[in-house]
Amino acid sequence: MPGAGKFAEDELRGVYRAIRERRDVRSGFLPEPLSDEVLFRLLEAAHHAPSVGLMQPWRFILIRAIEIRIAVHDIFLRANRAALDSYEGDRAKKYANLKLEGILDAPQNLCIVCDPECERGHRVGRHSMPETALYSAVCAVQNLWLAARAEGVGVGCVSILDKEALQKVLHIPGNIVPVAYLCLGYVNHFAAEPDLERVGWEHRIPLEQVLGFEYYDANWNSKEMKP
Amino acid sequence: MPGAGKFAEDELRGVYRAIRERRDVRSGFLPEPLSDEVLFRLLEAAHHAPSVGLMQPWRFILIRAIEIRIAVHDIFLRANRAALDSYEGDRAKKYANLKLEGILDAPQNLCIVCDPECERGHRVGRHSMPETALYSAVCAVQNLWLAARAEGVGVGCVSILDKEALQKVLHIPGNIVPVAYLCLGYVNHFAAEPDLERVGWEHRIPLEQVLGFEYYDANWNSKEMKP
Repeated sequence: MPGAGKFAEDELRGVYRAIRERRDVRSGFLPEPLSDEVLFRLLEAAHHAPSVGLMQPWRFILIRAIEIRIAVHDIFLRANRAALDSYEGDRAKKYANLKLEGILDAPQNLCIVCDPECERGHRVGRHSMPETALYSAVCAVQNLWLAARAEGVGVGCVSILDKEALQKVLHIPGNIVPVAYLCLGYVNHFAAEPDLERVGWEHRIPLEQVLGFEYYDANWNSKEMKP
Repeated sequence: MPGAGKFAEDELRGVYRAIRERRDVRSGFLPEPLSDEVLFRLLEAAHHAPSVGLMQPWRFILIRAIEIRIAVHDIFLRANRAALDSYEGDRAKKYANLKLEGILDAPQNLCIVCDPECERGHRVGRHSMPETALYSAVCAVQNLWLAARAEGVGVGCVSILDKEALQKVLHIPGNIVPVAYLCLGYVNHFAAEPDLERVGWEHRIPLEQVLGFEYYDANWNSKEMKP
């Protein structure tokens, strides 16, 4: 081993398992709530994300009240109808059959928001790329997603939501950005492949197709990027 | 255990270790290059990230040529001088002493870019939140960061770069977004705490300060968010 700090075999395997077996879960949530201990571990995982300048711009809103989840679900239904209207023919039929969220099924919802102008970190790293504040909050989402998989907790991310309507329901100020709306809960199983692949909506492409050397691969623009 | 799929103790510990012991590495890189096997595992980890509609909008540019790394380092130096000019007094002195990148020290650089308008995924999930394409590429960054930690590979993210200059050097088209520029390599050690904390630039705040229930916490706006 050339360098320091490599994990033991079992721990290394755990990391790769979490990465490979993580799924976007939209169905099969169980009604049993997560314990505070498990929730705390998952939120601590999110809170350990990298952040530009150590600004830690994420804020976590844990939602368990059914009336709030119903209000968010209504926002989803409206946005989903609008999305459905943009498809035609077979694609519209397929879209109508997709199960895309578990807002009411999962006993816990979590909205991760970002304060992109927070002064913490003294703007280091944000002069050239201010978007790294938002990216930091996304890293928190991914940390939580992976920790949840290892705990046997399903996580589904819902992006079919009107952000302004969501801000209104959750009292989020206009300068604060909703980054992810997550549904969390125990599940009856984790699928072997992504839902969208199983139902034939889209298929994954191999790594080789998106890997280039030294420079951007000009073929990426013309490729259809089909699997 | 209420649900399915919880990992065994060692594997679970590996996931949490990667999350807690991951660092943004800017110094201590060793000159030994990563093997193709290790690089492939890290890139596969990135490629297993969640993506909206399975669009997999990330493209990976692996950079090993020293002349390209020198050109990118020049872009960093210019951006860093501009950033330094924005600070005054003690803060400027502190900034001048920060070591913020390992572009020339790390034998591998990796630029992760995003094609946010790629048609893959048929736009599912992107009608309301088109930014989720970029967020997907950020999840790929975080997957790689965690897998690298488990492999004993240091990763440093450089955001002090002018994106247009970077696009020019790496031949990245204008419609493709550079999301992260990473320095990768074996290291002589992983620090116990973030560099920015050790040198007194910023300190981490506890989870409790960014956790709210049911609604956005109005106090978050007035809080100074000091540790």
